[in-house]
Order: sequence, then structure tokens, then C-alpha cells
Amino acid sequence: MAPSPNKTLHGHKLLVLLGVTGPPKALLGTGFRDEWIKELHELFPDLKIATVENVLWNTPEFKKKLPDKEWEDATILLTGSALPSPDIAPKLEYVQLQSAGANHVLDHPLIRDTDVTLCTASGVHGPQIAEWVVTTFLAFQHQITRYVDFQRQSTWHKLQEPVDDAVGRRIGILGYGAVGRQIARVFKALGMDIYVCNLHPRPTSESRRDETYTPEGLGDPEGIFPRKWFSAGDTAGLHEFLSSGLDLLVITVPLTAKTRGFISRGELALLAERRAFVSNVGRGEVINTDDLIDALENGIIRGAALDVTDPEPLPDGHRLWSTKNLFISPHVSGNSSAYGQRVYEILKYNLTRLSEGRELTNKVNRKEGY
Amino acid sequence: MAPSPNKTLHGHKLLVLLGVTGPPKALLGTGFRDEWIKELHELFPDLKIATVENVLWNTPEFKKKLPDKEWEDATILLTGSALPSPDIAPKLEYVQLQSAGANHVLDHPLIRDTDVTLCTASGVHGPQIAEWVVTTFLAFQHQITRYVDFQRQSTWHKLQEPVDDAVGRRIGILGYGAVGRQIARVFKALGMDIYVCNLHPRPTSESRRDETYTPEGLGDPEGIFPRKWFSAGDTAGLHEFLSSGLDLLVITVPLTAKTRGFISRGELALLAERRAFVSNVGRGEVINTDDLIDALENGIIRGAALDVTDPEPLPDGHRLWSTKNLFISPHVSGNSSAYGQRVYEILKYNLTRLSEGRELTNKVNRKEGY
Repeated sequence: MAPSPNKTLHGHKLLVLLGVTGPPKALLGTGFRDEWIKELHELFPDLKIATVENVLWNTPEFKKKLPDKEWEDATILLTGSALPSPDIAPKLEYVQLQSAGANHVLDHPLIRDTDVTLCTASGVHGPQIAEWVVTTFLAFQHQITRYVDFQRQSTWHKLQEPVDDAVGRRIGILGYGAVGRQIARVFKALGMDIYVCNLHPRPTSESRRDETYTPEGLGDPEGIFPRKWFSAGDTAGLHEFLSSGLDLLVITVPLTAKTRGFISRGELALLAERRAFVSNVGRGEVINTDDLIDALENGIIRGAALDVTDPEPLPDGHRLWSTKNLFISPHVSGNSSAYGQRVYEILKYNLTRLSEGRELTNKVNRKEGY
Repeated sequence: MAPSPNKTLHGHKLLVLLGVTGPPKALLGTGFRDEWIKELHELFPDLKIATVENVLWNTPEFKKKLPDKEWEDATILLTGSALPSPDIAPKLEYVQLQSAGANHVLDHPLIRDTDVTLCTASGVHGPQIAEWVVTTFLAFQHQITRYVDFQRQSTWHKLQEPVDDAVGRRIGILGYGAVGRQIARVFKALGMDIYVCNLHPRPTSESRRDETYTPEGLGDPEGIFPRKWFSAGDTAGLHEFLSSGLDLLVITVPLTAKTRGFISRGELALLAERRAFVSNVGRGEVINTDDLIDALENGIIRGAALDVTDPEPLPDGHRLWSTKNLFISPHVSGNSSAYGQRVYEILKYNLTRLSEGRELTNKVNRKEGY
């Protein structure tokens, strides 16, 4: 439904809702900054902008701040999860979410019953999650925690085993989306050989592209880093990938009926050849926790880093906490002080495309649900 | 003295001395491997090869394993520090050291009094040291040690402060040689802005190249990553570099009369603007230890990571051990299980160049001493 060019966004009005269903700080830090409003006014002189912050959705106070008539000419909405009913906002064309996922709004009448363009903030997590993956893997390889302990003992002590550095070793990335692509960029720079595996086959260079928002110069939008592409469409495909001589397996896939328990005893056994390190930044339930503990305790794999666990939050005293060669963090790898800035970059990018009459990026396919 | 091409290395003999002045394991792991000898024979069918391992230099046992007449037709020598007197080995053309430095052999008559080509193993440390720098910096930013402590307490606890990820932040690399260039490659992939500073100015693209051995696809031989080049030829130049809005300062320079105490109180004060993190993989004496402790304790800089210290080894109980926001490791960042493989790669690379009648790489300039 790409409209014709409209350089100044004449006739458009952007509504920004922050902190109307939860704390805004978590997502946009200091709120929708004045410098952003200023920049949008410069880029799109005819765009009207209204912001509503820190007042609970649909309370009398909210209605006072944002009377129904304000919705009448709104064409663009930046929101967390609050959405108007379709009849209140008849001109709405484009809804920009602040989250990477969209499942929390798919059943809303505005999304279900109209053809408003819904866009996620997918792509905002790549840099910080890639950093988490690289630092937890390298910290394990370089035995950083042991050196922290020596330091706490005020003792100069060199470990005798030399470090296996990353050059020429192989990383397998399960799920080659926005996050996986930035991980590939960093590990490529370290000298690693990149193998990737998606749920759907990617046989052509066109299918290997990714249109998700990516901070400039980062990620792998063209799909140039992987030396080999696998497809986990069936178990044989997944097993072929896991048997390909991986030194490091990174899991970035979302949780679906298909990926639940994706990595269990049989799959971990395939990693034994090079005792791959396993890093999970997808969802805890993708790995079978008991099987992972066994694989770690028995040395089938050399180590693991989990930012997500099953169960989550991991209860105090759970035996996963004390499993050997394991690092756990409490689902924090996606946090970044730049989160709000990147959400704004996506909004600005899409407004630019709207003004040029082009397709928006990060559009949700309602059938696929993401 | 590039000779004419000699594809098979006819008339050449390589002597390999391993562990004749110290343990060979530290440098070449499992010794000079049979697979390497096999590969050299395939590449250079006429090259003779003799290896002597694990016997002390110039003892009767050594002389028995390597009689003087074995030196007579030796043209190439791979060694740690053991060198023959010039009259014993009259045909020696090329000596390949296993160390990145050469200062320990510069006064030997063979080096001082002949024009034998002396090459270092410079370039073998880049990957593992870059890994050390990136993991210690990111572990600090992501507060990995605090999460290790929560894990040891079996507690799911999210820290509230969001992480400042690396995208768009600025790294300043003091000393842009083989190590600095691999550091630049990795931090560029993380999205950082790269500034570098050398002791000599590098105004032209030719001067920005680096001919040091680099594992394929790594480092920055052409000098393409830095956005800005500084020169620390005088204090004003160093201060201009340190005042350029750095978020991270990485020190890779060697210790010379000039670099001793290079980073002291006045220099650390220049890093206060963005409270830069300081990482030292050069030599401990480049930083004034007392001034660094003050800068850390007073929050002038946000943190530091030291693989080298002054004094070194750092004595038990030294106050540097317990300085806040500091990580210390005992001069291990250059260790790698791939060290021997990389020394062999340099030897092979130079033998190939020798066979093609080209200049060797990593040649020591006897005047400069490196």
C-alpha cells in the first residue's frame, strides 16, 4: 500500500505514546527527546507531532491529555502496546511498536480488522546481544573469572594451559536474523568460520538478504558472512548443521511449537566432536535444561552461557546455578542505554520511506505473526 | 639482497632449533610437527630440513645431535635465541626468530657482524590480545563479574542500570602495529569509531600500511579502519589524541625511553571528559601506577584492564590488586595454543618469498632495533 511521495508529510500527524501502559524509562530512557521532535520537524516540515507520556491508558486523565478528537487526524502512532479502537482513529496508516515482537497486539481489533501497517522495533537488540555473546564466550576461553579470583586473592598466578583463540574455529548460528547477523560480523572479525542455520531454506542470494532495520555499518543485511547455510526445516537438517564441526553454537531463534526442546540430549551429543561451547540468547525453552546440565557435567560440551533459562526466572537453589562451566545472566543481554535512540532511528527511517512513497521496514506479516 | 627465484629451494637447508635454550612447549606446543615438515617438502622439494629439539645449547649432547659440519650448508635457521658464531655457519642467509621482539639477539656477532636477514615472529599475538582487550572491556561494560557473583549466590537479580553498548563510541589505539590493527578490526565490527596514534606521523596512505605478518583476513594491513590518525611525536600530539573524546583507550606501545610514564596524571586527566576505560597490553611502565590508582579511585576514568603492570610480577598485597573498577591478569594475553602454528606460517610465508626471489617479511631493521 505504498502511497505516492509526500516529502513534507503534509496531512500527517504522529502520536507518540510513552509510559501509558508501563514505565517509559525501560524503553525510551529520557522520554521522547526534544532533539528528536526538532529533527523530525526539520525533516518533515508539515508533520504534526503530539506526545503523551506517563499517564495511564484510557483513564480520565489520559482522555483529558489526549481527547478522542486528537485521534481523528492521527496517521502514525508510536506505542508500546496501547492501541485505539479502529473507529476512533480512522486515518491511522502506520503503527510503530517499541518492541521487537508483535504477538502482544495481534489480537487487537485495530490490527486484526484493519490493514494498518504494523512495524516492530526488530533490530534494536543486535549490537548489545552480540556483545554479550562475544564477551561470555571469550571470557570462558580466556578464563577471565579465574583471573578475577586470583586478583581477589591479590595473587600473581599464570594458568598453564594456553588459550585456544578464535582464529579458524567455527561458529554455528541457529537463527540468522538481526541478532544473528551482528553476531556473525563480530565473530568474523575475530577470524572465525561462519555457519548459519535458519528454519526455512535460503538457497538464493535474494533469500539470504535481511530487510530488518540494522544500525549503519553493522549486521549482515546482504548475507555475506556465512560460508555455509543450513536449514532446520526437519530434524535431519538440524542434525546436519550440529554435526558440521562447530566450536561454538549460538542460539537466537524465538520460541515456537517447533523450537521448544529443539536442543535436547540427541542434539547436544552431536556437539561432542569439538566439545562446542553453547550460547543461548533466544529463549530458555529451546534447550532441554536437564539434558544441558548432563552435557556440561559429563564434558560433552566444554561450556555454556545462558541469558535465558527454563524455568525463568530461575528459582534460587535450582541446580542449573551451580552446574560447572556455565555462566548465567538474568535475561539482560538485550538491555542497552541506546534502546530508545534506536527505536527513534527506526521511526525516522520509516517516516523517510513513507515520505518517499516506499515500503516501510520491519513490517509484521500478520499470517506469520512476526 | 633479494636473490633470484629458486622455486624448489635447491641448495637450501633449514635448521630448526626448538627447546635448546628453554622449554619448546611454551612456543611451539608439540614441537616442529611432522605435518609441517611434510608440507615444506611438498612446497620446496629440494629443501633439506634438520630439526634439533630439547637438548641444551652447545653441550656435548647438542654437538652430537648437531655436529659443526651440519651448520656448514645451513642457509636458514628457525630459533628462539640460540645462534651460531658466524664462522661456523658461513652460508646462513635468513634467521627466523620465534619471538615478536629481537632485542635479545641484536648483540650477537652473527647479527652484529654479518648481513644475515633477521626476521621476527611479530604478528603472532594480534588475535589473542585483541580477544583479551575486547572481552575485558565488554565484561566491564556488561558487569559480567557482578552476574558471576549473583550466580554463585544462586540468585536471579537484574541490575537496573542499562548497559552502554559500543555502537558509535570511540576507541583510541595508542600504537597501531600488528596488535593494534586486529583490535581495530574487532571494535570496528562492534560499531565503534576508530582513532589511532603512532609515535611517528603517518600522513600518507603508503605510510599507513603495515607489512607485518597478519593471519589471512585479519588485522588492518592497509590501514583502512582508523577515521583519524594522530602522532605522539611530542607531548602536544599525545595530548591532542587523548583529548579527542575517547570512550576507550588501548595501549599497545612497547617500552622505550620515550614511552616510560607516557600515561601519567596529566594524561589521565584528559580522559575525564568521557571517563574513558583504559586497557594496557603494552608494558606496565608506560602507565604511572600511582596516578592510575588515583584516577580509578577518584572516578576520573571509569575502569581499567591491565595485562601488564609496574612492578611486574605485581607483589602479593600491592594496593593495585584491590583498586576499584580494575581487572588485572598476569601478562598472559599473548598466550595462545596457536602460537606455534603461526610461527610456522611466518616461516612458510618467508620461505615462499625466498623461493620467489622476493623480500622477506618481518625483517628487523638493525638501526631501529625492531
